[in-house]
Amino acid sequence: MKLTWKRLRIRPKHRFATSQWATDEKETIVVRLEHGGVAGQGEIVPSELYGQSLESAEATLAAVQNDLGDDPFRIEPIVQHLLAKFDGQRATIDGLDAALHDWCGQKLGVPVWKLLGLEQPRKQTTFTIGVAEPELIRVKVDEALAAGFDALKIKVGVPDDHQTLAYIRSVFKGPLFLDANQAWKPQEALARIPELARYHPTLIEQPVDRRDWQSMAELRKLRVAPIFADESCERPADVVRLHGYVDGINIKFNKCGGIREALRMVALARGLGMQVMLGCFVCSSLSIAPPLTIASLVDYADLDGALLLAEDPFEGITRTGGTIQLGDRPGLGVWARG
Amino acid sequence: MKLTWKRLRIRPKHRFATSQWATDEKETIVVRLEHGGVAGQGEIVPSELYGQSLESAEATLAAVQNDLGDDPFRIEPIVQHLLAKFDGQRATIDGLDAALHDWCGQKLGVPVWKLLGLEQPRKQTTFTIGVAEPELIRVKVDEALAAGFDALKIKVGVPDDHQTLAYIRSVFKGPLFLDANQAWKPQEALARIPELARYHPTLIEQPVDRRDWQSMAELRKLRVAPIFADESCERPADVVRLHGYVDGINIKFNKCGGIREALRMVALARGLGMQVMLGCFVCSSLSIAPPLTIASLVDYADLDGALLLAEDPFEGITRTGGTIQLGDRPGLGVWARG
Repeated sequence: MKLTWKRLRIRPKHRFATSQWATDEKETIVVRLEHGGVAGQGEIVPSELYGQSLESAEATLAAVQNDLGDDPFRIEPIVQHLLAKFDGQRATIDGLDAALHDWCGQKLGVPVWKLLGLEQPRKQTTFTIGVAEPELIRVKVDEALAAGFDALKIKVGVPDDHQTLAYIRSVFKGPLFLDANQAWKPQEALARIPELARYHPTLIEQPVDRRDWQSMAELRKLRVAPIFADESCERPADVVRLHGYVDGINIKFNKCGGIREALRMVALARGLGMQVMLGCFVCSSLSIAPPLTIASLVDYADLDGALLLAEDPFEGITRTGGTIQLGDRPGLGVWARG
Repeated sequence: MKLTWKRLRIRPKHRFATSQWATDEKETIVVRLEHGGVAGQGEIVPSELYGQSLESAEATLAAVQNDLGDDPFRIEPIVQHLLAKFDGQRATIDGLDAALHDWCGQKLGVPVWKLLGLEQPRKQTTFTIGVAEPELIRVKVDEALAAGFDALKIKVGVPDDHQTLAYIRSVFKGPLFLDANQAWKPQEALARIPELARYHPTLIEQPVDRRDWQSMAELRKLRVAPIFADESCERPADVVRLHGYVDGINIKFNKCGGIREALRMVALARGLGMQVMLGCFVCSSLSIAPPLTIASLVDYADLDGALLLAEDPFEGITRTGGTIQLGDRPGLGVWARG
């Protein structure tokens, strides 16, 4: 297998911010795997929160490039080998897992979702409204609704929360996810969350510090909305540890390492009676395709990373209102915009 | 999709008995799925213990034959539909799950293990010595060792246990699994199991009644060998419930409903820190192929169901000593002999 990679520059249409950070422009890495005249691609979206960077991703790729063997069909043993050796670099493993799946689909001439025995992916996604000045929030919300989105995710945990949410609920009655990205101290969360009940949120993500599972268990008891773990839940082992502390988990492929680890997390969460959503970071469609591939297995999708971009370098995912879908093309079903 | 089925008569070389029942001859059902000029096959091996019979399997097949839709690639939604509608008939669902996977592999020209991204299956299997008179036990053990088997599973829970085990340990030093098939009352198990320590068992399966999880938890504390649940553990939900009560589980495809449910059980057991073995009933190679396909994911295999037969109606699985393996043929990799 021949592995090559290059950086990809992407830019959100609006500055994208949470309670913790902001993005005006960023780089990801596109990794390309060639073997036997067939190529597969994946995107690596490192996140500093999980000890990942562009540099650590490139160092990992350089370290594994001659270490993947000569059969891209061996996805499971290859991914297990990578997890054992580079456990902290799961964004890179995600990109390689995507490229391997893409290669297999290309080689056999079928979409990856078909290889996996799944429904053709077609899923409602929330559209995320990042933290911003109230005037810009209004612009973003109006744009989102005008564009046909029918489920919204709002970043909360800032002083303007009520102003934002009151405006949204004055113009939008549909599903509303709230995401605090660890913003609140435990006592603050206990006070804030009951005040959010009036906006009828579908769920509330990561209200407190990612290590503070006990507070999340307390917040569940408020019964305002299901409490979901995002930053607290990176990989399969976390799902088990979080059992009883939260109602659901947010699986992101750059946290867990791709399709195979995500399928294990879904099986664990389902078995343990937890709800599941799929999330993403700001990214191109190339790294939306893998989670969208398995979206028929989960409750909710927040797969808007590429929809937030001024221009998506990849195409293949179509959108009708708030629903995104993959077509019948072989592999992951996305290709560089040409 | 066109579904047809017929009964298959199979006969063990020696009468096969456990502490609970005996088999001289039995019937299974071969189900054949045809679509677009391609065919897939699976075997249904009903077990009365789980409320399954040849008749209930045939009734289920008749009920679903016009209800499977027109795309055998949709394995996951089809299996989910069947589980929702015929939860008690998982042996039948297993046969259909196998036929669907076989069809997909045949259609794409690749083995199912490759479709699933797994290693080429090559796994040590235990060879099972059923309950029998001491003279016949000697014959069976001597035959098994002469045939090159290098791991044995012994059915225990009868008065001759010590005579059997003492003989085996006088001629065999390798891995030895003990399976009581619920034979013992709790107090009996507490007394018997320490006496078995001298034979150095690798694991002890289902020592007590399948509903008596508490006793299994007590028996773990003896630390004679890991305690595995078989009859107690049918499907994914059981894995979660058994967490903390046993060290491992025995997944059998006619209990759980095939490859897809088994993969969920493996993910759950792994996530919960439990060991996993794959087991089977007396059957042809057609229903050994699906569990063997995923055997690289588990700790132990007891996949000797077809090796116990006087004549296996299917071929394709090769054996070298105690190790069985699947080749490169498309689909499940087994075909009717002759």
